[in-house]
Amino acid sequence: MPTPTALRSSAIALVGFDGDDTLWKSEDYYRDAEAAFEAILGQYLDLRDAGTLQHLLAVERRNLKVFGYGAKGMTLSMIEAAIELTEARISARDLQRIVEIGRATLQHPVEVIAGVREAVAAIAAEFDVVLITKGDLFHQEAKIAQSGLGALFPRIEIVSEKDPRTYAKVLAEFGIGAERFVMIGNSLRSDVEPVIALGGWGIHTPYATTWAHEAEHGLSADEPRLREVAMAADWPQAVAELDRHAATQGPVPSA
Amino acid sequence: MPTPTALRSSAIALVGFDGDDTLWKSEDYYRDAEAAFEAILGQYLDLRDAGTLQHLLAVERRNLKVFGYGAKGMTLSMIEAAIELTEARISARDLQRIVEIGRATLQHPVEVIAGVREAVAAIAAEFDVVLITKGDLFHQEAKIAQSGLGALFPRIEIVSEKDPRTYAKVLAEFGIGAERFVMIGNSLRSDVEPVIALGGWGIHTPYATTWAHEAEHGLSADEPRLREVAMAADWPQAVAELDRHAATQGPVPSA
Repeated sequence: MPTPTALRSSAIALVGFDGDDTLWKSEDYYRDAEAAFEAILGQYLDLRDAGTLQHLLAVERRNLKVFGYGAKGMTLSMIEAAIELTEARISARDLQRIVEIGRATLQHPVEVIAGVREAVAAIAAEFDVVLITKGDLFHQEAKIAQSGLGALFPRIEIVSEKDPRTYAKVLAEFGIGAERFVMIGNSLRSDVEPVIALGGWGIHTPYATTWAHEAEHGLSADEPRLREVAMAADWPQAVAELDRHAATQGPVPSA
Repeated sequence: MPTPTALRSSAIALVGFDGDDTLWKSEDYYRDAEAAFEAILGQYLDLRDAGTLQHLLAVERRNLKVFGYGAKGMTLSMIEAAIELTEARISARDLQRIVEIGRATLQHPVEVIAGVREAVAAIAAEFDVVLITKGDLFHQEAKIAQSGLGALFPRIEIVSEKDPRTYAKVLAEFGIGAERFVMIGNSLRSDVEPVIALGGWGIHTPYATTWAHEAEHGLSADEPRLREVAMAADWPQAVAELDRHAATQGPVPSA
């Protein structure tokens, strides 16, 4: 049932898109980096016993507040974890190899996910759009440039943390309330949950791999302001449906 | 000679401020980090012979395009340089100490430079102001928060490179031409030269120490759109003078 134009004009005004693993592949390269890191550590440790990845994750969590997200912080964390785990037996040459892992991660090719370009263009024809991406400013700018998607986004916000405060600040800059904002991303924790907490709307498209830290969230399974869709090609229809529901202020039925 | 109000309204509209070593101390902590790094390397090398700092600077320049500016890139560069310079003789414990140098640099206390708070407040009473700071997003946000200056700046731009393109983008977001913009900073290369290249105005207040990479610039000694002043307390008068000259479109006499 189409919603009258008068109502539509008061519904969704802005659609936000996450970058890493929503518009382009990212996590795969971090998984490659982890595998390369494990291969180096495997020369010193029995990885089945040592809980190496658990230790790395613990060091990463400890370091997140100091180093922030991204490949550089990961590399510094890997160096620390390698020294800790090997009780300083690791050679300088192998630590140099870990620095090289970081360099390779920062310079990985940017591969836009299938269907993204067309879906963003279709949504941008109907709504204002903004790219809201988390992480290292320098690396994110390089990825946006290489993706070729920059021209689709008049506004790009690179943020250090995706929490309700950050989204509220972005929405204030656009001068709209959260009830008129849909965020699309692969992370319930970073892309959807904080926006729904503000009274906004979310579209979740899971990526094949998701970093353990990002898998933690507090959304209920039947959250009415959230849509789960499998791929980018589904986004325009999901946005249109949320727009209709936003216009009528009604709850969103589960898909 | 005061300029009539009608002219003033068409002169300077926006004043930009650099962050590191303009509003708060930064370089001192990087110098401390260098000294600590040298102390570690001194256990392996005769620093008078090895040209260690030259080698570090060479590695930093090589890595700038990959790692960007800031403490994390510096730390990764130091680790690489230490391994190269010692031909991998450096111990894992000492490499861990270099990671700790990076952590300390990221967590250094933020000390606002004398007179800055009052000068920014005085300028903000007359002009729109914006903080335009370069470097790691996560670290810069932490420094802005700790400085207590965030409330003086309704708009903060954290950028990855300070070149004419970046300044042009910021000015486009404010909707003003460069001829109505003054940038205040400690670096001729990053803060003043690109703004003057766009047709804007600059105020240069040197900091006691300036990173060698930042000391390179292409401004002539008698650039008429630039004012050199010794301290923050001089900024309000320098802005007022540039504003008068901008209003009359005349060249700025040297101070």
